[in-house]
Amino acid sequence: MNKPENQSVFTPTVTTGPLMGSRKVYASGCAHPDIRVPFREVALHPSAGEPPLTIYDPSGPYTDADATIDIDASLPRTREAWVKARGDVEEIDGREVQDVDNGNVSPEKLTPAFPVKHRVLRAKGDACVTQLEYARRGIITPEMEFVAIRENMRREAVGIRDGEDFGASIPDFVTPEFVRAEIARGRAIIPANINHCELEPMIIGRNFLTKINANIGNSAVTSSMAEEVDKMVWSIRHGADTVMDLSTGRNIHNIRDWIIRNAPIPIGTVPIYQALEKVGGVAEDLTWEIFRDTLIEQAEQGVDYFTIHAGVRLAYIHLTAKRVTGIVSRGGSIMAKWCLSHHKESFLYTHFEEICAIMRAYDVSFSLGDGLRPGSIADANDAAQFAELETLGELTKIAWKHGVQVMIEGPGHVPMHKIKENMEKQLEVCGEAPFYTLGPLTTDIAPGYDHITSAIGAAMIGWFGCAMLCYVTPKEHLGLPDRDDVKVGVITYKLAAHAADLAKGHPYARLRDDALSRARFEFRWEDQFNLGLDPDTARAYHDETLPKDAHKTAHFCSMCGPKFCSMKITQDVRDYATKKEEAERGMAEMSAKFKDVGSEIYVHPTGEKRAPID
Amino acid sequence: MNKPENQSVFTPTVTTGPLMGSRKVYASGCAHPDIRVPFREVALHPSAGEPPLTIYDPSGPYTDADATIDIDASLPRTREAWVKARGDVEEIDGREVQDVDNGNVSPEKLTPAFPVKHRVLRAKGDACVTQLEYARRGIITPEMEFVAIRENMRREAVGIRDGEDFGASIPDFVTPEFVRAEIARGRAIIPANINHCELEPMIIGRNFLTKINANIGNSAVTSSMAEEVDKMVWSIRHGADTVMDLSTGRNIHNIRDWIIRNAPIPIGTVPIYQALEKVGGVAEDLTWEIFRDTLIEQAEQGVDYFTIHAGVRLAYIHLTAKRVTGIVSRGGSIMAKWCLSHHKESFLYTHFEEICAIMRAYDVSFSLGDGLRPGSIADANDAAQFAELETLGELTKIAWKHGVQVMIEGPGHVPMHKIKENMEKQLEVCGEAPFYTLGPLTTDIAPGYDHITSAIGAAMIGWFGCAMLCYVTPKEHLGLPDRDDVKVGVITYKLAAHAADLAKGHPYARLRDDALSRARFEFRWEDQFNLGLDPDTARAYHDETLPKDAHKTAHFCSMCGPKFCSMKITQDVRDYATKKEEAERGMAEMSAKFKDVGSEIYVHPTGEKRAPID
Repeated sequence: MNKPENQSVFTPTVTTGPLMGSRKVYASGCAHPDIRVPFREVALHPSAGEPPLTIYDPSGPYTDADATIDIDASLPRTREAWVKARGDVEEIDGREVQDVDNGNVSPEKLTPAFPVKHRVLRAKGDACVTQLEYARRGIITPEMEFVAIRENMRREAVGIRDGEDFGASIPDFVTPEFVRAEIARGRAIIPANINHCELEPMIIGRNFLTKINANIGNSAVTSSMAEEVDKMVWSIRHGADTVMDLSTGRNIHNIRDWIIRNAPIPIGTVPIYQALEKVGGVAEDLTWEIFRDTLIEQAEQGVDYFTIHAGVRLAYIHLTAKRVTGIVSRGGSIMAKWCLSHHKESFLYTHFEEICAIMRAYDVSFSLGDGLRPGSIADANDAAQFAELETLGELTKIAWKHGVQVMIEGPGHVPMHKIKENMEKQLEVCGEAPFYTLGPLTTDIAPGYDHITSAIGAAMIGWFGCAMLCYVTPKEHLGLPDRDDVKVGVITYKLAAHAADLAKGHPYARLRDDALSRARFEFRWEDQFNLGLDPDTARAYHDETLPKDAHKTAHFCSMCGPKFCSMKITQDVRDYATKKEEAERGMAEMSAKFKDVGSEIYVHPTGEKRAPID
Repeated sequence: MNKPENQSVFTPTVTTGPLMGSRKVYASGCAHPDIRVPFREVALHPSAGEPPLTIYDPSGPYTDADATIDIDASLPRTREAWVKARGDVEEIDGREVQDVDNGNVSPEKLTPAFPVKHRVLRAKGDACVTQLEYARRGIITPEMEFVAIRENMRREAVGIRDGEDFGASIPDFVTPEFVRAEIARGRAIIPANINHCELEPMIIGRNFLTKINANIGNSAVTSSMAEEVDKMVWSIRHGADTVMDLSTGRNIHNIRDWIIRNAPIPIGTVPIYQALEKVGGVAEDLTWEIFRDTLIEQAEQGVDYFTIHAGVRLAYIHLTAKRVTGIVSRGGSIMAKWCLSHHKESFLYTHFEEICAIMRAYDVSFSLGDGLRPGSIADANDAAQFAELETLGELTKIAWKHGVQVMIEGPGHVPMHKIKENMEKQLEVCGEAPFYTLGPLTTDIAPGYDHITSAIGAAMIGWFGCAMLCYVTPKEHLGLPDRDDVKVGVITYKLAAHAADLAKGHPYARLRDDALSRARFEFRWEDQFNLGLDPDTARAYHDETLPKDAHKTAHFCSMCGPKFCSMKITQDVRDYATKKEEAERGMAEMSAKFKDVGSEIYVHPTGEKRAPID
């Protein structure tokens, strides 16, 4: 690490400190003692008589009260030792940054380079350095143990297994060996570029907790590096498990560096966006060489997964001509335009094995893009979409042959009755590789509310087996999300993912619902806020009607007031039931005594003459 | 009608005028020529080459640019003539308003009485004046014709019937006879008190469009009459099909009068709330006589449906004792407390036939309350909930015997995998009487976002057959909703109901999605805003990033900018496909010519030698 002292850098500010009512805790590894798996712990009011609740926490050191955050210094690079210890990588100089990587921006408009340069790691020779390769060889990596601990959330007992899992195989507890086996068979991935040593590993697969992705990224029209770094930190603060940097326009190389060096979560990109910038935005001018160069550039920076639209084949393009909304994927439309202009098969498809060869050298995972996904209810589940999906299945097998980890992107816009077919078809044709969908939106009529139209579809497809849900913000179709939109999008998708985990019968899921419901029932207002996905908003809403601190312990709320409080009345019901039980127990004992003499003199308190219960 | 000139009244202000981009239009009746069925019409940009889209519109005259709105004068009482023409009602003086009806509030705090008094209508003798009774007798009332026209939304062609309806029988077009038949068999209701002559009738049933309800109401803790009238108008402006007035505390008689006289939609109440106020909030002091008096009071005012928790039987109460959240229904808990205190069966249950006798004299519909609904994921589908549902089924049959219209209330909090069971069980035990659910919420962990946790469940249960969805606002569990919350709740439920209609394959539903998607694809921004559920918000979001008016016609947007615009590229794809088709058609013609001489010299543009397509 080499931080130049004299470089003047604009350091973005980010939100730090614990979430309200939470503190950061860590669990250690067993086989790998240097592992520190982060969790968020919510302590409850003493009257609850309950231990603190452990919550899955992708927010990184930013929410650790004891951590020193220095945005221009990289996060701690714990993984570097793990990667190097495997003995199959070498340090190289790496590709030189070129002006074109930042869009040939003039010096005064250049986003400063990230102040710290790390040596690039790459596989030695043609070694395969992917988690998939290790898993196949029977090796349990520190990354695998890390995610196993992470998924178990410090549970000691098996939770309630009440759900319908549609053929998933969710274990009571996740062992490192289970993680290894799931990765080996391609059913889960740990997106973890060997150059992203700041990463806290996480796993994506339908037998694990449902994950969510948040998109950030500047565009040619608006937004800057400082905003994007802040959005990344902001989105993981609220629960995003991975973040995609969808930047276009200028400065994207340098912005990406700032993001990755400060990201404890996997970062995904769509490399064709940058490649297109390099050819001045003219899709026809794209070449395999420029794309290849961009893959290496980004792989060396540490991008953990690449969306690659290699399923947009020349032969499928005309299938979209009669659609209501044609091709809505940016990457898909770029490739479609290229294919048409040259009247050639996509270079992503024809060079797919070479792409695999690059990605396995850094352990970049594929997110095979759905360039022909439907952009409206009318186009859902059509021939173009499913033709591409078949090709993604074919490409999955090729990637696996090369030892590259794969997930598959999915739609988009799908009415409720067509969602299940998407999941089933994906499982079938892609050999159970993790599915990663955008929503889907279940209606097109609510611009401004598409986080909700899509949360409906996301919850459902998550239940059916989708492993990761790409968030949609309220600004979808209308504008670029700001900080507030990012937060609303993340929280909305967290609740959708959790609803899916609940319905699948994930052994952890119910713990949090039940803890919150008990807090609600017992008027532990602070606990109710803190156990929720967004303590600040919950508290603010409560305070709008009942702002006084005394009301935080009030045994009623503003909705009903004290007289109508059903919770209060229920306490009476409980007291009654207890008394009734005691009375009946007493009678049962008496009755037992009398049984010997054949007597039946006890009358039930309801007035009916009946045998005492036991 | 008799409006005292000298009475000084505080007149609430409400929002009037058409929604952005819409105008009010009316369709006439056929059998009943004085029927004027309101719709909202969205005209599209001339470049669309499409007729205006007709939208279902419960907002009443408030959104009619030509209407004069006078809040202290009642809406037009069109129905009065229809009701009287049936010859089975009489005008009576009605019950005198008593101080206790308004909570014995001191004169200076009294909400003024509504300035206009109408004579009360009641069935002559023991006549049954319900829509159910008429339907059974084979009579098509003006109300039935009204809703038939309303449901068809001026469609001329049958829309796309692509859906899975789980055994519903949604017709291509709704005829007045279909409406009659559905009401006669209890599968749909038109809540329409004969004293609510300001009503524009609407229908609730699973073979019709899915409806939504918004709750308003002051509480002992906060809010006033002016706010509640405004909230009613505000909620129907955005699409609420019925409104429940859940007021508690003081002034509720007078507030209710203001609401009903200005309501073009059915108003529902929970009479036990007011009855409890009359006994000073002491549940034990409730009597059948006080409740009965309250029913008559409210029936005479024109309340269209009563939530009555007659299924909370003494024997079921102990089933809730081990629940995580006990009894969460206010009405349910009040009755549970009464039953326990007296150790008696609920007077709502024991007097159920007398309740029917009152309701049939005014055509008040039952909304049989689910007083034992689950208040948390943990309590979903439990013994208490389903025991009560069985009783609601039994009571449905009794109500039907008396000719009273019935719908059934449902949960609540239910994880996704348990939602379908609710719908199936309800259809089975309640003889297909319309189901009316609150959400259900699919997880408990998101206070502040329960409009979304519940929209997921609402969309699903609507798809499965639920006829009306009771909205949940972001403030659920935390505080009383304000105007903004009401709007967000309504829009969220409109989109959930629409997603349900789409998935059921309702012949209207796709028209709006497709019109909006075409507008989106063709960059008709104004059309996209106006066709959406919330034009103002969509426009505001767009303007945040691209405020200039020129951008409203820009053929790109802020998300991708001009270079990455997939919509633009798709146009190239279409042009290509057209050219390809033309080329192939040309070749086919040439080929046909050559066929006679056995030649095959044409090479397909892809380079492969193949037979021309036909």
